[in-house]
Amino acid sequence: MSNNALIDNLIKKISRLPSLGGRSARRIVLHLLTKSRGDMIELARALEQTANQIHPCQRCHNLTSENLCDICQDETRDQHAICVVRDVSDLWALERTRAYKGQYHILGGVLSAMDGIGPDDLDLAGLLERLRTMNAREVILALGATVDGQATAHYISEAIEREALGDIAVSRLAQGVPVGGELDYMDDGTLITALKSRGSLSG
Amino acid sequence: MSNNALIDNLIKKISRLPSLGGRSARRIVLHLLTKSRGDMIELARALEQTANQIHPCQRCHNLTSENLCDICQDETRDQHAICVVRDVSDLWALERTRAYKGQYHILGGVLSAMDGIGPDDLDLAGLLERLRTMNAREVILALGATVDGQATAHYISEAIEREALGDIAVSRLAQGVPVGGELDYMDDGTLITALKSRGSLSG
Repeated sequence: MSNNALIDNLIKKISRLPSLGGRSARRIVLHLLTKSRGDMIELARALEQTANQIHPCQRCHNLTSENLCDICQDETRDQHAICVVRDVSDLWALERTRAYKGQYHILGGVLSAMDGIGPDDLDLAGLLERLRTMNAREVILALGATVDGQATAHYISEAIEREALGDIAVSRLAQGVPVGGELDYMDDGTLITALKSRGSLSG
Repeated sequence: MSNNALIDNLIKKISRLPSLGGRSARRIVLHLLTKSRGDMIELARALEQTANQIHPCQRCHNLTSENLCDICQDETRDQHAICVVRDVSDLWALERTRAYKGQYHILGGVLSAMDGIGPDDLDLAGLLERLRTMNAREVILALGATVDGQATAHYISEAIEREALGDIAVSRLAQGVPVGGELDYMDDGTLITALKSRGSLSG
């Protein structure tokens, strides 16, 4: 591509990253080489440092450079509410809203017959253990409105009931028409759910 | 964004690269951290190695890890034809076509009153010197069909004439309707140029 093995190797590596391809990888490498050589070294250092120092939080499996992540260490957050998510990107999405101030637990996936993911592949034991020790009052199952996500939510809610963990309120995210969504563009399943879960306006 | 300074710093650096933004930078960092930690180290090494070893070719200003780039070193290429381009990305674009097998010369830009780029900002002296020493027979000015590109082409062709460098054929890339282009979508300038430069079909 560039008549140089080093550059071609770098372009190839970058083009394999998500949301990039050959053309954008070439643009990025050319930009770095011709306009910001200093940034290139800094980016390399940041990548290596992050790769070497970041690992899962011992408690919730969020990413951190310490034993416990910033969220688990933050004592101002609600210590008796826990939000169960599939992976780190879902945790980040919820944190960006700044609407939730409790604990998290990352399952590492959702149950899926298609992908052969069963209960033993997820960190359910860890979740139940945490619920016991943290004296949990609320569990929010934020697992996505997919068939697999909802099946996993039901499985977890039954497991919590089976373990008789005391008076824990188990909820899941509301399903309905997204904010700003036109009814015309919604699929039937979303409309049916939104109708069934309709809320009173009179307060 | 992620509650971790190392990760946030890496996301910020990546989001500043061309054709990326905050969302795709987050996806890339999460992908690397959760799915391919090994690739992350390899990418860091490739970036650092490329930044440290790649520099402009002494002769044509293409990128290389040696004194002369692979193209300048390739003795099978035409030693008496030279193609003048604006920058490395234009050189790469022409090389991808595999349609040209001569030498290159990178100017480092084109003349531009708007951007304050004058003749002294481009490597014109180096080009004229090369034309003298290489006993050039053909110069192809591949400088883009923009106003600035064409002004630069004229400036160079006049400089070559002024220097009385002997019998050098100076040409520029053909302008017209791009292959696959519908007339309906072309601007007037392109259509006028294509009409004026129409070619005979009878051979």
